Amino acid sequence: MIRSILIANRGEIAVRIVRACRDLDIRSVVVYSTADKDTQAVQMADDSVCIGPAASSQSYLNWRNIIAAACLKRCDAIHPGVGFLSENADFARETEEAGLIFIGPKSETIALLGNKVVARTTALECKLPITPGSKTAVESLAEGMATAKEIGYPIILKAACGGGGRGMRIVTEESQLAHALQIAKKEALAFFGDGTVHMERYLQNPRHLEIQLLSDGQGTVVHLGERDCTVQKNHQKLLEESPSPVLDEKLRNQMCTDSVNLFEKLGYRGAGTVEYLYDEGKYYFMEVNARLQVEHPVSELVSGIDLIKAQIQIADGKKLGFTQEDIHLSGHSLECRINGETAGVIGKLNFPSGPSVRVDSYLQSGSTLSPYYDPLIAKIIVHTPSRDESLAVMLRALSEVIIEGIKTNLEEQKDILSSAMFRSGRFGTDLYKKVCTTEEKKSNGK
Amino acid sequence: MIRSILIANRGEIAVRIVRACRDLDIRSVVVYSTADKDTQAVQMADDSVCIGPAASSQSYLNWRNIIAAACLKRCDAIHPGVGFLSENADFARETEEAGLIFIGPKSETIALLGNKVVARTTALECKLPITPGSKTAVESLAEGMATAKEIGYPIILKAACGGGGRGMRIVTEESQLAHALQIAKKEALAFFGDGTVHMERYLQNPRHLEIQLLSDGQGTVVHLGERDCTVQKNHQKLLEESPSPVLDEKLRNQMCTDSVNLFEKLGYRGAGTVEYLYDEGKYYFMEVNARLQVEHPVSELVSGIDLIKAQIQIADGKKLGFTQEDIHLSGHSLECRINGETAGVIGKLNFPSGPSVRVDSYLQSGSTLSPYYDPLIAKIIVHTPSRDESLAVMLRALSEVIIEGIKTNLEEQKDILSSAMFRSGRFGTDLYKKVCTTEEKKSNGK
Repeated sequence: MIRSILIANRGEIAVRIVRACRDLDIRSVVVYSTADKDTQAVQMADDSVCIGPAASSQSYLNWRNIIAAACLKRCDAIHPGVGFLSENADFARETEEAGLIFIGPKSETIALLGNKVVARTTALECKLPITPGSKTAVESLAEGMATAKEIGYPIILKAACGGGGRGMRIVTEESQLAHALQIAKKEALAFFGDGTVHMERYLQNPRHLEIQLLSDGQGTVVHLGERDCTVQKNHQKLLEESPSPVLDEKLRNQMCTDSVNLFEKLGYRGAGTVEYLYDEGKYYFMEVNARLQVEHPVSELVSGIDLIKAQIQIADGKKLGFTQEDIHLSGHSLECRINGETAGVIGKLNFPSGPSVRVDSYLQSGSTLSPYYDPLIAKIIVHTPSRDESLAVMLRALSEVIIEGIKTNLEEQKDILSSAMFRSGRFGTDLYKKVCTTEEKKSNGK
Repeated sequence: MIRSILIANRGEIAVRIVRACRDLDIRSVVVYSTADKDTQAVQMADDSVCIGPAASSQSYLNWRNIIAAACLKRCDAIHPGVGFLSENADFARETEEAGLIFIGPKSETIALLGNKVVARTTALECKLPITPGSKTAVESLAEGMATAKEIGYPIILKAACGGGGRGMRIVTEESQLAHALQIAKKEALAFFGDGTVHMERYLQNPRHLEIQLLSDGQGTVVHLGERDCTVQKNHQKLLEESPSPVLDEKLRNQMCTDSVNLFEKLGYRGAGTVEYLYDEGKYYFMEVNARLQVEHPVSELVSGIDLIKAQIQIADGKKLGFTQEDIHLSGHSLECRINGETAGVIGKLNFPSGPSVRVDSYLQSGSTLSPYYDPLIAKIIVHTPSRDESLAVMLRALSEVIIEGIKTNLEEQKDILSSAMFRSGRFGTDLYKKVCTTEEKKSNGK
C-alpha cells in the first residue's frame, strides 16, 4: 500500500502531485535542485530532499540520486511527473529493482513505445491507420529513395527513439534526401544514442489530436475522449481543448476504440495518451506518450476524473472503480499555457479565480522563473458547457492575469483566442504563425 | 437587450457579477462607497460610480442614488447581488419604474414572499408541509396561548417581515409567552417596520436544507437539487454542501417537486431558493429567498449551470435553453466561508488553487477588510465525485490559505471538517457549538 511518494519533478506538476497526495492522505516528499530550494512544491510537501545542482543532468535527470533519495526518505513509490525521467524505461526499471513502485507504465511498455518504429508496427497490428511510411528503419539511401517514391514527397525523417520535436528532418524533393538522411542519422545518434531513423509522409498542416486513456492493468481500459493540441509554437503545445472542434461523433468513437484496442494489446498499465495526426477527415497514429501530459487537466474537467489520483491508485494495485459507461464527458475545456519568454524575478503576480476557472501553477509574487528549466508559469484552465463559453471565460480569466518583471506569452494567447481563425475551429498547426507572427498579423489587418 | 449592468453591491459578489458580465460581453458598472474605492470590483468593472459614504444606509442601501447612478451611466439593468437591496420590493419596483430591468423576481413576488405569513399560506395552498403553527398573525395573548397549547412547546415567535435570524423569540413554557410576545412585536416593528408576529413549533436541532430553482417566467421551472446549510454560527451559515448527506432519493424528489410546484404557483421569475427545516425524516417549508444566495456556487458546481449568467439571461427575456431532463447533478460540492473576526489591513494573503478548487473573493495581499460590512473574506468551494473526497480536498485547500494581519475563522472551519460529527453527516444546527466552543471541545477530548 502506497503511504509515501517521492515526487521526482519540479514546478507546477510537482505542486499538482503534492495536492493529489494530500487528497489521498499520502505523505509527499519532493526532490529539488539547489536552484529550486525556495519553490512552492518544497514548501507544500511533507518533506523534501536536495538532489543536486541546478543543471537538470545533475539533479532532475540524475536518477540514481533520486532513487537513493526515495530509499533514504522511506518512500514506497516514485511519481516522475511529466518530462525529465517520466518516459525513461531504465529509470522505471531501476525504481522497481530498488523495491519501489514506479507510478507509470511497466518499464518494458515504456521501452517498447520509446521506439517509434516498434510503436508503429504495434499500431498496425491493431489495425490503426498510420501515415504511409517505412515499415522498419531506413537502412540505406537506395531503400529510402524507393520508399519516398512510393509514399510521395514531402516526407519526414524521424529518429526512432526521438521525441519532443527533435531529430526530425522534412524532405520536399529527392535531391535533398541523401544529405537529410545523413544528418538525421547523425542527430538521432547524438541526441538519443541510437542512429535508427524511419520515414513517414509529411502532413503539412495537420491537427494534433490525442486520446487520454486510463488502464488498471487488470482488464479495464477506459478513454476520456480526445484533446486537440493543434495550437503549437515550434512544436511546443500552447493551448489545448477538449472536445476538438473538428471531430464528429463517428470519428471520435473510432479513434477512441482504436486507442483502447491498442492499450489492451499492449497490456498497458496507468495513464497514457495515443497521439494522432488528423488531416482532411482522416486520422493517423503517431505515437503513444507513456506518461502523464502537461495538458491532462482539460480531460480531468470534461470527465470529472482526477488523473493523478487514478495513476496513484492504479500503481497501488487497485482496480479502476468505474467502466466506460460510468464516464460522462460533459462541456468543453480549454487550457492556455502561460510561458515566460525571459527568466528572472517576478514582481507582482496575480492569477484569475472565480467560476469555471482552474489555475495550476507554483509561482507567487516575488518568485523567480528559473532560466534552467521549462518556462511554464501557469496553466489557466476553464470548463463551461460550450466552446463559445469557454473562449469567453478564458479571455476573462486572462484579463485578470498580472505578471510583472518578465516577458510572457500572455498577449499572444489573447491574440490566438480572439482570432477569427481559432474561433472558427478550422485551422492546422500553422495557426500560430498566421496569428502571432508579424508579417502574417499585418496581412490579417492587425 | 441587456448591454450594460449596474452592480448594486460590493465585495466578492460584485466581483462575481463583473465576471459574469465579462463572460456575456456585457458592460459592467459597479457602485461603491468611499470606503470601497480601491476594491477589486471597482478595478475590474468597466466603469464605477461612488454612491455615498461608508455607512450602508447612505450607500449600498441608498436606492435612489443607485437608480440615479444606473441612469447616469446608461445602464439597462441593475443586479442587486445578495443582501443589501436584493429582497427589497420597493427597490425592485422603482428600478422598473425608472425604465430599467431589475435582475431578480418581479417586485410583487418579492413583496408577497417578504411576508412570512403570506408565504406560509401560499406554501400550504401548494400542499407543502409546514411546521405546525398559527395560520395567520398572532393578534392577542389569548390567541397565542391557545395556538401554543395546540402545537406544543417549545414554540418560536417570528416577525412576519423579518429575516436573517432577527426578530425571533423562542418560548419554552407558557409562563414566558406574554413577555416574549410583547418583545417580539416591539422588535418586529423596530427592525422591519411591521409589528406582525406569527408562531411556529420550534425544532430544537433541525437541519437547514434548501432547493435552488431557476424559472424563466415563461413556463419553465427547474431545480438544481438541494443545499445543506445546517452548519451555522449564530444563525449565520458557515459551510454548505450539495447533495445533503441526510436526504434519500425519495425525499429529495418530493422536496424538489414541492419547490417547483410552489414556484409555478407563484409565477416566479429568476433564480430563487425554497428553504426548509428537516427533522427526523420530515421536512417543513420555512421561506422563499427571492434572490441569489451566497452559497450559490455549490449548486453551480454540481449542476454545471452558471446561476448569474442564467439570472441575466432570464431578466433579458430569454427562455431557459434547457429543461429538468437536461440537468445532471453530479458529484459533491462543499463551500467554506472564510470570515474575518477582526477588520483591518491584511498582510500576506494566499488562496488555494489547483484541481477541484474554486475561490470567490475580492481581496489580495495588502487589502483592507472593512469594518463597515459583512466580514466575508472568501468562499472556498470544492467539487469532487464524493463527499469523502470533497472533505479531503477542502482540507487540502484550507491548508494552502494564508491570511496575515487579521483574525479569521479558518481554524474553526478546519475543526468542523475534521470533526467526527461533521464527517458522519449526522448532525443538526448545534454542530458549531459542539465542535467549536471551548467547553464542548473539552468534552470531545480535544
